[in-house]
Amino acid sequence: MSRPRIGVVLSGCGVYDGAEIHETVITLLALDRAGAEAVCMAPDVDQLHVVNHLTGEVAGGERRNVLVESARIARGKVSDIAAVQPSDLDALVLPGGFGAAKNLCDFALSGPQCVVHPDVARLVRAVHSAGKPVAAMCIAPAILAKLLGDEAPELTIGSDPQTAAALGKLGARHCDCTVGDIVTDDKHRLVTTPAYMLATSITEAAAGIEKLVGELMALVHEDASVARQ
Amino acid sequence: MSRPRIGVVLSGCGVYDGAEIHETVITLLALDRAGAEAVCMAPDVDQLHVVNHLTGEVAGGERRNVLVESARIARGKVSDIAAVQPSDLDALVLPGGFGAAKNLCDFALSGPQCVVHPDVARLVRAVHSAGKPVAAMCIAPAILAKLLGDEAPELTIGSDPQTAAALGKLGARHCDCTVGDIVTDDKHRLVTTPAYMLATSITEAAAGIEKLVGELMALVHEDASVARQ
Repeated sequence: MSRPRIGVVLSGCGVYDGAEIHETVITLLALDRAGAEAVCMAPDVDQLHVVNHLTGEVAGGERRNVLVESARIARGKVSDIAAVQPSDLDALVLPGGFGAAKNLCDFALSGPQCVVHPDVARLVRAVHSAGKPVAAMCIAPAILAKLLGDEAPELTIGSDPQTAAALGKLGARHCDCTVGDIVTDDKHRLVTTPAYMLATSITEAAAGIEKLVGELMALVHEDASVARQ
Repeated sequence: MSRPRIGVVLSGCGVYDGAEIHETVITLLALDRAGAEAVCMAPDVDQLHVVNHLTGEVAGGERRNVLVESARIARGKVSDIAAVQPSDLDALVLPGGFGAAKNLCDFALSGPQCVVHPDVARLVRAVHSAGKPVAAMCIAPAILAKLLGDEAPELTIGSDPQTAAALGKLGARHCDCTVGDIVTDDKHRLVTTPAYMLATSITEAAAGIEKLVGELMALVHEDASVARQ
């Protein structure tokens, strides 16, 4: 098959108000090493807020745009998610960080009552409906639970009881998972891993993320093999 | 030996106005996997400017602080370089990105006439004078050329003739180097690699950076072995 194109949905640049940087870079490296093309994208909206990552405090009055900040991790190569066609992608990955729960949806504020950004919802639903695999890490599986909960998907955010219960309320079946492992829902073609929900080091986060990308690419190549038959 | 402590000198968060994010994360992962503790640090100064990484244009009027933005890559664990004691470190690494040539020094503006931030200069000189190894990637070797040029160190920024000539004017001996390789100056205990000065993919950048960290750790363990004798 030609080089698979994997959408990477970013939510800013920094764990406390955007995409988790380590998770994203490890994902981009694993995809590239697996022979895939990472297609970075983000919504063109203001961040919920800007957090000073040195103090942990919200920087009052400062505004930053999710797409513009995501461009930092993507070295400028990032598309407005509103313009991305699901037919252009072979799969989708959602890295974590608070941005996934503050900018892509508002799970961090509203829990099970959260609303997902409409363009994120459209793309995730369309890629999933086309039978293509979707992966998510850290807190980002909450988005899958919200969008696909009526299908009772199996997924993980690690082992935090409160977050797991919230995903359960959305209809997902939460599976506890250790930091270096993944949960694969074969029926729904979803792969999830806890990453920094549990990781205490970058090595721990990388172990689960590299496994997740490996599984995602196996599902993508399975699709290609079926298509050839 | 106990876990070696390797200083990682950051210059913001984003290739065009700060530390190159991929280079930094790959360095942090390689250090952690090698059993070292990464000690992230940055100067507490304003960035030279803020670049919109989506458009490539300078965002007029916006100010960001190098230490605060560096905290994004370091997940909050970053020290003011002014407070770092060289005796607390076993080695030093300088990732690249324009921040190394705009915030840690002004090589991007002034070339061979550049001035290095005094706290960066103090720490690099002190670690080097103590015989501990120093590594640098991408454009960051320019800082080593400026500070240590009178020792005629061997180093690389890849193969760009103009930049190589500027380092030569500072007294360094520039060696052309391919993206996946490193230049080691055994006498001066310096290791350098081109990274995104040449890389056209994150995989290419990672190949050289992982080799650089491997060589740096070999030099650190050499020191520990000598100390035990």
